[in-house]
Amino acid sequence: MGNVILDMAMSLDGIIAGPNDEYVGLHDWFFDPVGRNREIVDESLATTGALIMGRRTYDMAAEQDAFVDNPYNVPHVVLTHTVPKTVVKGSTPFIFVTDGIESALDQARAAAGDKHVVIGGGANIARQYLQSGLLDAIQIALVPIVVGKGIRLFDKIDASPIELETTRVIDAPGVTHFQFRVVKDNKRKSSAHEQ
Amino acid sequence: MGNVILDMAMSLDGIIAGPNDEYVGLHDWFFDPVGRNREIVDESLATTGALIMGRRTYDMAAEQDAFVDNPYNVPHVVLTHTVPKTVVKGSTPFIFVTDGIESALDQARAAAGDKHVVIGGGANIARQYLQSGLLDAIQIALVPIVVGKGIRLFDKIDASPIELETTRVIDAPGVTHFQFRVVKDNKRKSSAHEQ
Repeated sequence: MGNVILDMAMSLDGIIAGPNDEYVGLHDWFFDPVGRNREIVDESLATTGALIMGRRTYDMAAEQDAFVDNPYNVPHVVLTHTVPKTVVKGSTPFIFVTDGIESALDQARAAAGDKHVVIGGGANIARQYLQSGLLDAIQIALVPIVVGKGIRLFDKIDASPIELETTRVIDAPGVTHFQFRVVKDNKRKSSAHEQ
Repeated sequence: MGNVILDMAMSLDGIIAGPNDEYVGLHDWFFDPVGRNREIVDESLATTGALIMGRRTYDMAAEQDAFVDNPYNVPHVVLTHTVPKTVVKGSTPFIFVTDGIESALDQARAAAGDKHVVIGGGANIARQYLQSGLLDAIQIALVPIVVGKGIRLFDKIDASPIELETTRVIDAPGVTHFQFRVVKDNKRKSSAHEQ
């Protein structure tokens, strides 16, 4: 079975998008990969078995035609309060889940087979998984910019400190790619088991 | 002339101290340097010509006897509203400055000679220098932990995005050492010159 990985691009000041979810340039390395960014993109495409995202991320991606020629041809699990009546066209398989992050993870795991389940946005979903103790790993593409204003990845985290082990650091053009293993978080793990 | 460097240890979620300035373990690599942390510590001690800090950082360090056997035997410029009547004992030379960050920098530069001026805390002073356009470089010791609650380094930054260039990444035991060059920030630079 693969890992459950939170994978986000973040500025040095912890921002993942502008105040109204505007794009602030944090994925340029992905869209036009040079140097070692190429191998990071290839690895992600090869090892991701399913993606989990929030409804807002889905809506915004759909609006921006991000699912047209989607390089991730794997099931996309969308956490939502209500299932949309029409689904964006294209080859991306969507699974809409209305009963929470654990159900979403179960369905993503079933869809992913041996590959990884990747939680890719937005901040609210990321926070829920961070606090749940369900993550095996965190991947951060750290972009050297201080954005100043915007949505923070690690905001309002209501959990005891989450200890990580740095398992990989790759310094690529315009971005540093981190892999962290979630070391221990007994309190959160046990509360997740209780649910 | 040396550079003006903001040098801080920060958690992955951007925190530099607990909510009430408590130590949250971010300098363990400094106090007990193993592996490549040793060369980072040695480099810092050898190239720092003067330190700038806020009054609160000074008071807390004094209270904790951090200036006893202080490894940085260079002038410490303390930004303060009022000069304290008695100064902490020891060999550390202190310069108390009451007329703002530019004056503090001028005095630190004069004291540093050819070496670097290092801005080492706290968050408020760091923010002022970040916004001033006076920084040449930022050094971040990124510690793999999500602390959750505390004082953030990059909070309430009121400036256009600050673009950085990653000039060095060293993955050491328990911490990743970043060096960034401040690339450009014309707006802030010109407003600093106007003062």
